[in-house]
Amino acid sequence: MTYCVGMVLEKGLVLMSDTRTNSGVDNISVFRKMFTWQVPGERIITLMTAGNLATTQAVISQLEERAKEPDERDNAILKSPTMFQVATEIGRLLRDIISERQGVNGDRGHGRFTASIIVAGQIKGMEPRLFMVYPEGNFIEASLDTPFFQIGETKYGRPIIIRGYDRQMSLEDGVKLLMVSFDSTLKANLSVGLPLDLQVIERDSYESSHQHRVTHDDPYFQAISSSWGDALKNAFHSLPDYSFYFED
Amino acid sequence: MTYCVGMVLEKGLVLMSDTRTNSGVDNISVFRKMFTWQVPGERIITLMTAGNLATTQAVISQLEERAKEPDERDNAILKSPTMFQVATEIGRLLRDIISERQGVNGDRGHGRFTASIIVAGQIKGMEPRLFMVYPEGNFIEASLDTPFFQIGETKYGRPIIIRGYDRQMSLEDGVKLLMVSFDSTLKANLSVGLPLDLQVIERDSYESSHQHRVTHDDPYFQAISSSWGDALKNAFHSLPDYSFYFED
Repeated sequence: MTYCVGMVLEKGLVLMSDTRTNSGVDNISVFRKMFTWQVPGERIITLMTAGNLATTQAVISQLEERAKEPDERDNAILKSPTMFQVATEIGRLLRDIISERQGVNGDRGHGRFTASIIVAGQIKGMEPRLFMVYPEGNFIEASLDTPFFQIGETKYGRPIIIRGYDRQMSLEDGVKLLMVSFDSTLKANLSVGLPLDLQVIERDSYESSHQHRVTHDDPYFQAISSSWGDALKNAFHSLPDYSFYFED
Repeated sequence: MTYCVGMVLEKGLVLMSDTRTNSGVDNISVFRKMFTWQVPGERIITLMTAGNLATTQAVISQLEERAKEPDERDNAILKSPTMFQVATEIGRLLRDIISERQGVNGDRGHGRFTASIIVAGQIKGMEPRLFMVYPEGNFIEASLDTPFFQIGETKYGRPIIIRGYDRQMSLEDGVKLLMVSFDSTLKANLSVGLPLDLQVIERDSYESSHQHRVTHDDPYFQAISSSWGDALKNAFHSLPDYSFYFED
């Protein structure tokens, strides 16, 4: 499994992904799931992937190849005029790769090669944008009402984001929120694992403002992980107590 | 979907279940998922069910019929000498009902009639016990290492139980913990819905010590739901702040 989150704040985008892939519990590997293309000062585009690893690697490799020769390929994401067109192109590529695999494998491939992708970024002169691309190639965009997208093992870490999110929060607080969400997920599910990749894209910087790999011995993540338990317990005890003698 | 939790504390058992059943989002109903049989002063047995509603209702109805004529049926749960035998009998009944449905419906029924059941209770002279019964009829028992079972939509509400559980906590705090876990789940998933059923079985009381239906206008649940958001935000802000200028 996987866990990736992309979040839109007033001040920019905060992105985090884990790196665990597994094919059964006895076949676990570390693969990067966050990929960035940038033309500093002009655009930055970051993808996070979940699903069949062969599918997502094929998407990333094709985008890499196109990016290396942007002049020859009109659909290179480094040349697309808008983030909408970037998402459209990635959706087309993802759908083509999945349907080709399913075509070759017939019925046996049904659903096995599926994947989804979070696309985040900003192009000069436009707003930072965040998309979720489905295996069918279509996609949705984050909005004021739904300002974050999760893919993979999304449920454990969702309640804290729902409760903690505030569009006005600092980028640092956005990172803290995702650290807590990942910590809750890691504690509950073995299929999501360290190290984590973190990227912050400050609004109108058109480049990666901060990038960090969170490993097992990361002091900040360790501090979050150990103090969140105590903080939750304090929060819990601050709630009104239940009594068996309420009137029913 | 469904969400039910059974939890073993030093002082007894705390059980909570929702009441929403759905067959598609346009066909939602309220059905009780918590069922109790007791001989006050001698035994109390409570079941919570998740899965196919026709299956779980068939299990409950058969147990009801047997309970009404306990002298005629050796396998009535009101006569079983131990909780282990109660769980065994419920497992057998559950498996028989599922496999009969699948037999009649052939391949089309594969997996569609599945259900699982949490069995909790205490019989005089023995410990309070908590089991999780699988659709195959086998079951596992809660232990010091795994002191609670969840069925249904389990993921959203799991991190807070993992973090907040303490075997020594009061029964009232146990209720509070499950209220928070249910609130997190309700906030994130429409397939789990109010009202909730709550039951507390104090150790060595051999009867239901407290029972309560939590409805939309329940003042305690409303208080938990509204103050948990603030409490979480305070907990979040009490954590160390992230800085982009850590050494990497």
